[in-house]
Amino acid sequence: MKFRRSERLVDMTHYLLQKPRILVPLSFFADRYNSAKSSISEDLTIIKETFEKRGIGTLQTVPGAAGGVKFISRAGRAEADEAISELCTLMENPDRLLPGGYLYMTDLIGNPQLISKVGKLLAAAFSDREIDTIMTVATKGIPIALAAAMYLNVPVVIVRNDSKVTEGPTVSINYVSGSQKRIQTMVLSKRSLREGAKVLIVDDFMKAGGTINGMINLLKEFNASVAGIGVLVESEDTKERLVDDYVSLVKLKDVDVRSQQIKVVEGNYFSKVSTFLEEDAK
Amino acid sequence: MKFRRSERLVDMTHYLLQKPRILVPLSFFADRYNSAKSSISEDLTIIKETFEKRGIGTLQTVPGAAGGVKFISRAGRAEADEAISELCTLMENPDRLLPGGYLYMTDLIGNPQLISKVGKLLAAAFSDREIDTIMTVATKGIPIALAAAMYLNVPVVIVRNDSKVTEGPTVSINYVSGSQKRIQTMVLSKRSLREGAKVLIVDDFMKAGGTINGMINLLKEFNASVAGIGVLVESEDTKERLVDDYVSLVKLKDVDVRSQQIKVVEGNYFSKVSTFLEEDAK
Repeated sequence: MKFRRSERLVDMTHYLLQKPRILVPLSFFADRYNSAKSSISEDLTIIKETFEKRGIGTLQTVPGAAGGVKFISRAGRAEADEAISELCTLMENPDRLLPGGYLYMTDLIGNPQLISKVGKLLAAAFSDREIDTIMTVATKGIPIALAAAMYLNVPVVIVRNDSKVTEGPTVSINYVSGSQKRIQTMVLSKRSLREGAKVLIVDDFMKAGGTINGMINLLKEFNASVAGIGVLVESEDTKERLVDDYVSLVKLKDVDVRSQQIKVVEGNYFSKVSTFLEEDAK
Repeated sequence: MKFRRSERLVDMTHYLLQKPRILVPLSFFADRYNSAKSSISEDLTIIKETFEKRGIGTLQTVPGAAGGVKFISRAGRAEADEAISELCTLMENPDRLLPGGYLYMTDLIGNPQLISKVGKLLAAAFSDREIDTIMTVATKGIPIALAAAMYLNVPVVIVRNDSKVTEGPTVSINYVSGSQKRIQTMVLSKRSLREGAKVLIVDDFMKAGGTINGMINLLKEFNASVAGIGVLVESEDTKERLVDDYVSLVKLKDVDVRSQQIKVVEGNYFSKVSTFLEEDAK
């Protein structure tokens, strides 16, 4: 049975979106739709142009017998602007204020549409780097790490603060939480990360960077290296930052408990990330 | 600027996939592409047919002035079969065996492609029920809950075993872990769940069901109700099950530590779920 172009476009769009960074041979699509490779090529040109124009991403074509096409998720500048403003507005809601000046963020972390956008932006920030794995720390980093992993198509490893019988042998290190100067422990299952892996570290919140610094030290125990660091929120309220090279979506500038005001601004995202898709003016 | 049908199909497919269960007015697409509503209707017919034929889902059309179109994710029977067999094969790998007969599953939980399939199947199993929120327990349930939430477009709430300053006021209950008869505590942030919510409970592993039973009791404290229970793995090795009405993708039948054999079979998924998309023979 032959498929019309319109059906092919819908199905190929879905297929490619589901499999970012996986090389799909043209012959796979040709067989799937019982169509000529030349028709498939034309389809892919349409999809590539539309993906780029609409801020979805791009298609990379690898020529030759072992070649094919690969979907790379990227973000448009307008989309990134919009998502980051949305995050700022959501976070400035004074209802988030908790005793001690902490902010309630659990609802944001549990919002799949929002976290998917966060994951897309973080993935786009590191889309040109070679990344084998995303590492995060339980609990609130997990949704962000998974969302980014869906766009980069790499596994997530989860650092915990305790050992579990279901983790097998573990590597554990002590670290100093930067803001509270308290010694804490972090644990990673030994088999979850291979030697030499290039690791993107992701977390929900960074103040002095003690937790992220701990993850960097943990990577050394695996002879693994840091491919990048991305956080949803960085806090400005810190004397010394333990981590320098990171990407943040938003920055918590000030929490005034007395007047119940929270000030949240754009993070360093746009100064660190410069490759956006060229979108049409809408 | 006008958009050609081919571009519209690609962009609409992406747009609808990103926003499951959200009603999109036809006028939104008409404006977005500067096209007539009649053309948009034709596009949607093509997308609907292709989504159904390829096991992606369906489009629901709501007529009238406040109407529009809504993407509902569903699974095809063949796709569900394939994903569940893949899970069985992966889990039967004897390398997973840990002391005490526990199984290492952390790599599966951290695999975004696999967890996305798991989320899709669990979401499809409950796609006809009214669900406001998905609840899970930290840590390993989180990726599964988020993946299902992405298909159902509902928030995730995460039950923890301790209180954090960033959670605000919490409700805490004690529960008996079914297999070990040990008293444990679970905690949920008070503001994370509204009174009367209909909640889908999701977890990675269920043995006697003590943890899930705990979550059911926790829901009572919020006057919330159970809309469904879905687990990735159920274990057969249990004398009394505390939970009856659940959906499982796979069942751990036997772990033989001596011969290093793990037996994993299909769960009750196909006996509980009967509404699959009618796919074409491929």
